[in-house]
Amino acid sequence: MSTITLLTDFGLKDTYVGLMKGVILSVNPDAVIIDITHHVDPHDLRQAAFIIKSSYRYFPAGSVHVIVVDPGVGSRRAIVALTMMGQTFLAPDNGILTLIVDEGDIDAIVRVENSDYFLKAVSQTFHGRDIFAPVAAHISLGVDLERLGTPIAKKDLVLIRISKPYVGKKDELVGTIVSIDRFGNCITNIDSDCLAAFINAGKSKKLQVAIGQSKINGLSLNYESASLQSPMAIIGSSGYLEIAVDCGSARRYLGAAKGDAVHLILSN
Amino acid sequence: MSTITLLTDFGLKDTYVGLMKGVILSVNPDAVIIDITHHVDPHDLRQAAFIIKSSYRYFPAGSVHVIVVDPGVGSRRAIVALTMMGQTFLAPDNGILTLIVDEGDIDAIVRVENSDYFLKAVSQTFHGRDIFAPVAAHISLGVDLERLGTPIAKKDLVLIRISKPYVGKKDELVGTIVSIDRFGNCITNIDSDCLAAFINAGKSKKLQVAIGQSKINGLSLNYESASLQSPMAIIGSSGYLEIAVDCGSARRYLGAAKGDAVHLILSN
Amino acid sequence: MSTITLLTDFGLKDTYVGLMKGVILSVNPDAVIIDITHHVDPHDLRQAAFIIKSSYRYFPAGSVHVIVVDPGVGSRRAIVALTMMGQTFLAPDNGILTLIVDEGDIDAIVRVENSDYFLKAVSQTFHGRDIFAPVAAHISLGVDLERLGTPIAKKDLVLIRISKPYVGKKDELVGTIVSIDRFGNCITNIDSDCLAAFINAGKSKKLQVAIGQSKINGLSLNYESASLQSPMAIIGSSGYLEIAVDCGSARRYLGAAKGDAVHLILSN
Repeated sequence: MSTITLLTDFGLKDTYVGLMKGVILSVNPDAVIIDITHHVDPHDLRQAAFIIKSSYRYFPAGSVHVIVVDPGVGSRRAIVALTMMGQTFLAPDNGILTLIVDEGDIDAIVRVENSDYFLKAVSQTFHGRDIFAPVAAHISLGVDLERLGTPIAKKDLVLIRISKPYVGKKDELVGTIVSIDRFGNCITNIDSDCLAAFINAGKSKKLQVAIGQSKINGLSLNYESASLQSPMAIIGSSGYLEIAVDCGSARRYLGAAKGDAVHLILSN
Repeated sequence: MSTITLLTDFGLKDTYVGLMKGVILSVNPDAVIIDITHHVDPHDLRQAAFIIKSSYRYFPAGSVHVIVVDPGVGSRRAIVALTMMGQTFLAPDNGILTLIVDEGDIDAIVRVENSDYFLKAVSQTFHGRDIFAPVAAHISLGVDLERLGTPIAKKDLVLIRISKPYVGKKDELVGTIVSIDRFGNCITNIDSDCLAAFINAGKSKKLQVAIGQSKINGLSLNYESASLQSPMAIIGSSGYLEIAVDCGSARRYLGAAKGDAVHLILSN
Repeated sequence: MSTITLLTDFGLKDTYVGLMKGVILSVNPDAVIIDITHHVDPHDLRQAAFIIKSSYRYFPAGSVHVIVVDPGVGSRRAIVALTMMGQTFLAPDNGILTLIVDEGDIDAIVRVENSDYFLKAVSQTFHGRDIFAPVAAHISLGVDLERLGTPIAKKDLVLIRISKPYVGKKDELVGTIVSIDRFGNCITNIDSDCLAAFINAGKSKKLQVAIGQSKINGLSLNYESASLQSPMAIIGSSGYLEIAVDCGSARRYLGAAKGDAVHLILSN
């Protein structure tokens, strides 16, 4: 039980991530630390919530996932540790875990309060280094969650509203772009189950995806199966519908941005 | 045999690299994973071919090098694993290994097909996570290449044309800028052996390097030996001729770009 | 004694960092390598000096800190290794250690000259890979500093002038912005001790911080305690005064840049 993942909005320009790793290794020299990414858009809790939901299952059993997107650092927001599915999630209690809590049965949740497991001097602006890092290292060493603070119930967790796809007028399915990757692929909040249910309800009708002024007919199976330089709709590797352009950028092609609506229409 | 290197065009903004590492550790918890770089220009097979050629020798014996610059992901392109010089290279069969295959004697090549070593669910868009990562981890655990798929011959590998320096009219040696680094140093495809042969053929003549409108006289031995803020020609750390500006950027100074020609002239 | 940290201006776009890690692991397969950051502004010795001073204490006892911001690579500048406070610092002798040498008692300093611990072929442009990496790995294996080269005295080290806060006319305390982080927080060279002494001298007077055309009244305790979207002055996590904007960028708000002056005024 020694893999610790880091998911933050700290970027890699500064020393924030390096110092967290130094503190972790000072507590547990055998910890294996993996960066999920440090480029969550600053303070974007919803993006972080999507990322951890679609990432955790690819890490070893016993992993400790440390999520620090924390605009409320230094305020009274709590820090929580949650164990489920054989993994532990350590995060500010600000809604980042909203999409995790329904992934399975929760074994334990605590509000992290025991400063015996913090650095001796805790700053008001960098709990990542002073609280999250040493607490995660102690968890990876086998410290029981209950020693870290007060057990709380699932209903006590702060949750945030994360927009879900909905059926709009004219029986359209309306989703949202939640993330755009390095290649310009635009990832929506429409997962494959939701898409399958929508398509099946339309029986033999044909799918059309509308985004801005562009319309895409049908789903592609892989990046190469669409026409070169034309946008395609495809179920991406995280299990969500995405709009992509083979050997190009859907973001640039469509002038798309995070938060843009994507409309799915079934017609004959 | 537990060092696994990653060379991709995934960047570090998204979770692609983090998920590959999670999968590797899930298979081999003792793997030591090193990033060569994830900032290959998207889909630039030639740049990746240069990088792996000039990098592999700096890694421990037994290293497994995973190269994922893979515009054909999800299509019928094969995946190959190749062992030579005590190291293993795992890559799409798209020409990325073109410069590696002549570096020494090849011990084995296989087309990777055995899905026992893949993740159970293989997506059509992210073989880095679903195939390359688990296969690399199994290789690092000692799985024999022949268990991964069908042995093939060197001549069966896809190779790509990578432009080499050539002698042009007026006995010029003409090379190309293949990469520009963070400092603005412009790295060419002219290696030190090629340069030495060209210079020796000219006997006591003097070397001049022409790039765009700029002319550089002679070779510098280190960055400080040229005039401050003037371009110099120098054999860089990867063994190739590069154009640099001490305490400045040759890219900006020259307005240079990847693909630009560099002319070497010998005169009295 | 196996944690090795890297602090460079190499960035992550190129292979420089990856190759250093390959060389380290080739010498010491058990080394745990942590990136402090590779995004020091190119050739900015003062920024690197601040970073290592405010970082080292968060790493395990016995760590080896490798600092490569090295505009003089290939020239006659020396390389030094310095042990103090149970940690070792390996750096070019160009002033990068100026702020470290007064942090505690120095146990040993040597000029690194013994090429037995270098790569066999040493380039003129990349000592990070060819000298720093293998030497750091040997130190992490327990090689005594004295085997690496000639012992020197503290007074033999190259030091650089690093501007300190000073009391200007009208009894202002004048500092400088030395670094701006990803969030736009502007970090000054005024540490908490210096600030406390200045405030205490003014007795019951009120603190005002002036930067450019903006004036900030009083100190904030955490990011949330100031008005939203207004600049605040706060002691940041590295122990220095910084100017921040909650959920915004002080850099953009103030149009601030590295090197800008910050004036502290006490009035009734």
